[in-house]
Amino acid sequence: MSAYEDLMRFEHDTQALAQIAGRLGWDQETVMPRGASDQRGEEMAAIESVLHARRIDPRVGDWLGQIDDGALDTVAQAQMRHIRRSHARTMKIPADLAATLAKVTSKAQGQWAQARADEDVAAFLPVLEEVVALKRQEGQALADGGDVYDAMVDDYEPDMGAADLAEMFDAMRPRLVALRASVLAAEAPKALSGHFASDKQMALAAKLACVFGYDMTRGRVDKAVHPFSSGSGQDVRITTRTNELDPFNCFYSTIHEVGHGCYEQNIDEAYLLTPLGGGVSMGVHESQSRIYENQLGRSRAFTGWLFGQMRETFGDFGLDSAEAFYHAVNRVNDGYIRTEADEVQYNLHIMLRFDLERALMQGDLLVGDLEAAWNDRFKADFGFDVDKPSNGCLQDVHWSVGLFGYFPTYSLGNVYAGCLHQALRKAVPDLDDQLARGETGGATAWLRENVQQHGGLFRPAEVIERASGMTPGAAPLMDYLEAKFGDIYGL
Amino acid sequence: MSAYEDLMRFEHDTQALAQIAGRLGWDQETVMPRGASDQRGEEMAAIESVLHARRIDPRVGDWLGQIDDGALDTVAQAQMRHIRRSHARTMKIPADLAATLAKVTSKAQGQWAQARADEDVAAFLPVLEEVVALKRQEGQALADGGDVYDAMVDDYEPDMGAADLAEMFDAMRPRLVALRASVLAAEAPKALSGHFASDKQMALAAKLACVFGYDMTRGRVDKAVHPFSSGSGQDVRITTRTNELDPFNCFYSTIHEVGHGCYEQNIDEAYLLTPLGGGVSMGVHESQSRIYENQLGRSRAFTGWLFGQMRETFGDFGLDSAEAFYHAVNRVNDGYIRTEADEVQYNLHIMLRFDLERALMQGDLLVGDLEAAWNDRFKADFGFDVDKPSNGCLQDVHWSVGLFGYFPTYSLGNVYAGCLHQALRKAVPDLDDQLARGETGGATAWLRENVQQHGGLFRPAEVIERASGMTPGAAPLMDYLEAKFGDIYGL
Repeated sequence: MSAYEDLMRFEHDTQALAQIAGRLGWDQETVMPRGASDQRGEEMAAIESVLHARRIDPRVGDWLGQIDDGALDTVAQAQMRHIRRSHARTMKIPADLAATLAKVTSKAQGQWAQARADEDVAAFLPVLEEVVALKRQEGQALADGGDVYDAMVDDYEPDMGAADLAEMFDAMRPRLVALRASVLAAEAPKALSGHFASDKQMALAAKLACVFGYDMTRGRVDKAVHPFSSGSGQDVRITTRTNELDPFNCFYSTIHEVGHGCYEQNIDEAYLLTPLGGGVSMGVHESQSRIYENQLGRSRAFTGWLFGQMRETFGDFGLDSAEAFYHAVNRVNDGYIRTEADEVQYNLHIMLRFDLERALMQGDLLVGDLEAAWNDRFKADFGFDVDKPSNGCLQDVHWSVGLFGYFPTYSLGNVYAGCLHQALRKAVPDLDDQLARGETGGATAWLRENVQQHGGLFRPAEVIERASGMTPGAAPLMDYLEAKFGDIYGL
Repeated sequence: MSAYEDLMRFEHDTQALAQIAGRLGWDQETVMPRGASDQRGEEMAAIESVLHARRIDPRVGDWLGQIDDGALDTVAQAQMRHIRRSHARTMKIPADLAATLAKVTSKAQGQWAQARADEDVAAFLPVLEEVVALKRQEGQALADGGDVYDAMVDDYEPDMGAADLAEMFDAMRPRLVALRASVLAAEAPKALSGHFASDKQMALAAKLACVFGYDMTRGRVDKAVHPFSSGSGQDVRITTRTNELDPFNCFYSTIHEVGHGCYEQNIDEAYLLTPLGGGVSMGVHESQSRIYENQLGRSRAFTGWLFGQMRETFGDFGLDSAEAFYHAVNRVNDGYIRTEADEVQYNLHIMLRFDLERALMQGDLLVGDLEAAWNDRFKADFGFDVDKPSNGCLQDVHWSVGLFGYFPTYSLGNVYAGCLHQALRKAVPDLDDQLARGETGGATAWLRENVQQHGGLFRPAEVIERASGMTPGAAPLMDYLEAKFGDIYGL
């Protein structure tokens, strides 16, 4: 056995154990008895501790020292890139810092939830201060003298610098603010109305999952409080939720998670339980969920088909044409909440968070000034005041659990989706005819072939560049948004 | 930290990981996508390998060497008894034998299933021969010069010798054969008839689980091909199944698994994720499932209440009185299959297997003679001929997967249940009045107090002796069976 083979065999078991930990997470959010949470905490800690011990196992360092990457084939070189990257990250973070972070973020998550319920920012700030200080320490350990926030973004989106993101976002922001203002000044399309039974929503959601190519023999759709996708390879489960007054919540959450799920299901089988066997970055992952949800799922062509499905399932819901339905699906509303935002406003929510968390990490913003900074920026971009903290800086769990550098990958996913969508339209000229028949095969086969099958083989931006034939940038997304919403709102 | 504290902290994580492995088993039988089985096999192997590495971890031996059990309190001494026992067992079995056994039994299980489908005993015998030879090697390694089969029984029922079991069973057998013959010579009670919708069965099954004290906040009831109970402490899940022509299958499988599940749920919280935090032996476990299912669930008093529930749920099913219903529940039929057998015949199925597997292990029966020996014994005890191997020596999976010494614990569970039932009747004089109202609280509280809460604290026979106030023996069970079926069948 060569050192590479030994290492890959070790990695195989680590990947398998990580899949198990993920499955426990799914179980906890879907089927676990509610009285089991303390015991589950112990179980999760036990398997995380096994995973950690494997990550710092001295044999890994020995194998890495013995392997000459240049002598390996392309796939093996890509495996090594992931393993070396992850090993270097683990070895850079002092064990006591990792332990303290785990403890403090666990405490912070509870305090955040309480503070949000109480609308009490001040109660959350001391523990957020602790989290920020620890994350800066972690960032410094990872950055090797470079930019602390860059190192954090790199955790979720390898090779992506914060300065590049800032430049991209700064160029998008005025166009989005202007588009938002024009759209909300125009006459709002009619919304749908009625009562939409939960079980009928779930049945149509399952149908939508299949329509978008999700393989039910290697997955399942369940309800959970927050929609998510979990697992890789042969066991990729998604969740959705229902609101009997708003079926779009269920359907577009489902299509979104199906995008994530299909990415994981469609990775080359040869990469199963190897470092290449998962999505390559958060940004590329999000590009799949977003293109399924928005560019395909909210297109005029596809909503035409969905209109018929919904009429069949629910009868009358106050919209009498496919065109009115298309407008209702894409209706833009004033709102405070990121997770409820439409295609136009979503990225403004992200840019707000990106700028604030970057300033926090770089020391340009104090935790004590966060709420004021949030509220000022919200007023500037959205045109009205935040009414309460749960609609403002307390709305997201991310910072309490130490997720800094994660938010920008959502908008990067949108940018990537814009590039892929432009290329897809060229590659599949009759895409709209297919979508109008409720067929996504042309689109999903192209995405599978050009993006999904590769798993972690290429670098993130390289995946998008190879698939779209262009250097990733915001222009396709912005052009698409301005054209689509200009059309719908008659701008 | 003392060596004992170090060891218990290590054991805590091992127990937590074992719970995770168990949960994966539950997942596989209930919710896992069917295309995930290859990947799941890899995941299970990975966590089993982690568990094995912990069992042979040299630190365990070091800690065991440092601990003076005599200086510990009673509970800690009991913890040590379990840990030392399990460690000694692990260390006695050569690693290559364990690996070969795992490989051969995995192959044998597939060949057994195929042979059973093909009604082809000869196709199964070569691999069974291998399994028997390997299990004998394992037994020799465990027995330290003692009886090989004793060592196997000891795996499932500590401190129980095969000779004692044989003596007990030999005394029961003629009485059971005679009772069976009289019952089947008498007029058979009317069976119930009708169609019983699966979802209504599941709703009533969930109600029965609650009636018997199963805590749904720390458990759940799902469907699976084979009913089972899984997990300990705060997360104890059971499964059942439905047959739309035979609702008793669902209801009594449920009550049976509820007995197992309540045992695990009711163990003293202080033992959570320690060696004392599970049922103490297979025999004691089975005593709980059997007393719930049979002595309580199939009693005249309880079936009186159940009759009303079933009438409410299903309307008319051809039985017009609670007494006729009681007789139908306890109807004895000719049959080949152990898992479908009634209270009278079940133990005869077990004794047949016990005698044959003991003879196989002791070298008194050759694998090649197994089918003939089975068929002769079946004819002798049941009075008619086995018609095909799937109704004979190929009906159970146990031997193919190396479970020798396990079968007798089913009958031992019945014997224990008989002792407990006798004591319970004395302790709760108005038991029948309670059961007739659909209340099991008097019985389940007594079982919780006297058996379940102790987990692994006492030795198996000691648990029964403390609870029942008698040396465990078959007399109470036999008296109960003869009285009950004599009454029903007018003998």
